[in-house]
Amino acid sequence: MARDSAATKARLLDAAFAEFAAYGIAGARVDRIAEAAGANKRLIYVYFGNKEQLFDAVIERALAMGAETVPFDADNLPDYAGQIFDLFVANPDLARLLFWKQLERPGATDLEVTAYRAKNAAVATAQQQGRINADLDPGDLLALVLALSQAWFTAADGMSPTGTSSSWTTQRLAQHRTAVVHAVRRITTPHG
Amino acid sequence: MARDSAATKARLLDAAFAEFAAYGIAGARVDRIAEAAGANKRLIYVYFGNKEQLFDAVIERALAMGAETVPFDADNLPDYAGQIFDLFVANPDLARLLFWKQLERPGATDLEVTAYRAKNAAVATAQQQGRINADLDPGDLLALVLALSQAWFTAADGMSPTGTSSSWTTQRLAQHRTAVVHAVRRITTPHG
Repeated sequence: MARDSAATKARLLDAAFAEFAAYGIAGARVDRIAEAAGANKRLIYVYFGNKEQLFDAVIERALAMGAETVPFDADNLPDYAGQIFDLFVANPDLARLLFWKQLERPGATDLEVTAYRAKNAAVATAQQQGRINADLDPGDLLALVLALSQAWFTAADGMSPTGTSSSWTTQRLAQHRTAVVHAVRRITTPHG
Repeated sequence: MARDSAATKARLLDAAFAEFAAYGIAGARVDRIAEAAGANKRLIYVYFGNKEQLFDAVIERALAMGAETVPFDADNLPDYAGQIFDLFVANPDLARLLFWKQLERPGATDLEVTAYRAKNAAVATAQQQGRINADLDPGDLLALVLALSQAWFTAADGMSPTGTSSSWTTQRLAQHRTAVVHAVRRITTPHG
């Protein structure tokens, strides 16, 4: 029973991830999620609560998986940014999910606040020990590094692959990745 | 008559801007837009076409106003990025509108493609003449500079002011602006 329940929960979260990435919170249909998961709609309310709480659970799981796939490394931010870029290239739905979050469910969850504070502290330590650029506040540096890793996905001029992925070659993506790593290196290198 | 029509169009576009920024395309209600503009709903279809075409008109107007407020300057990208940041701080709805576009209406309009090519060419010229870093493709450099100017608004950890604007002091915003300008300077400075 416990195993079945865990498997059903996982299927519901997978289906909810796809549904929210496609339609956002307002546009998502709980019926479609239940149907895609092959589960009773009632179970969504039993396991997760309302649609917003289901969204929070999807976000929490996605961020935990992301943090596991790409561990934070204050001493190698160029490579960290490159790996975050790879993560979004491999999971375009993740970028969409975070856009929806920004629009429909802004504000940080407890997990995010905890993770952010840990990164902030690691950056501050690396700065104090002269290993990375100390001209910037750790929070600003973090935000800028993350922005660079996601530049491809936030480009407002339609350069992003979300709309026209077929036209973006592997080679073009590799070139942009190199640019991201180069830019983060320039930003994080201590004065010397 | 022509003047009345232009005034009505402008009121409809203002109302549509607010409605789309709040609810996106799928969530926007044409009735609410007409009511807020004090205009007949039918005029929206007469002037702009369907809801997607109205959204395109709103985007085109917003981008044109943005380009007028902050002219592109390939020779002073740090200041350009700072001014783009100011533009988003002053118009948080503009950031929301562009997020919705990314999710619901990706791909570049003709106007965007034209504007992008002009910026790209200006960056390429400045690179060839040794005035800015030539290690990166002009398109990559542009995307990275824009990402830095918008980092504050795309921070996935809930740092963004969209959710909790009251807690972001003028001083904190000024500090982040300085960080953006600093980072863009580091990225764009030629070697040597």
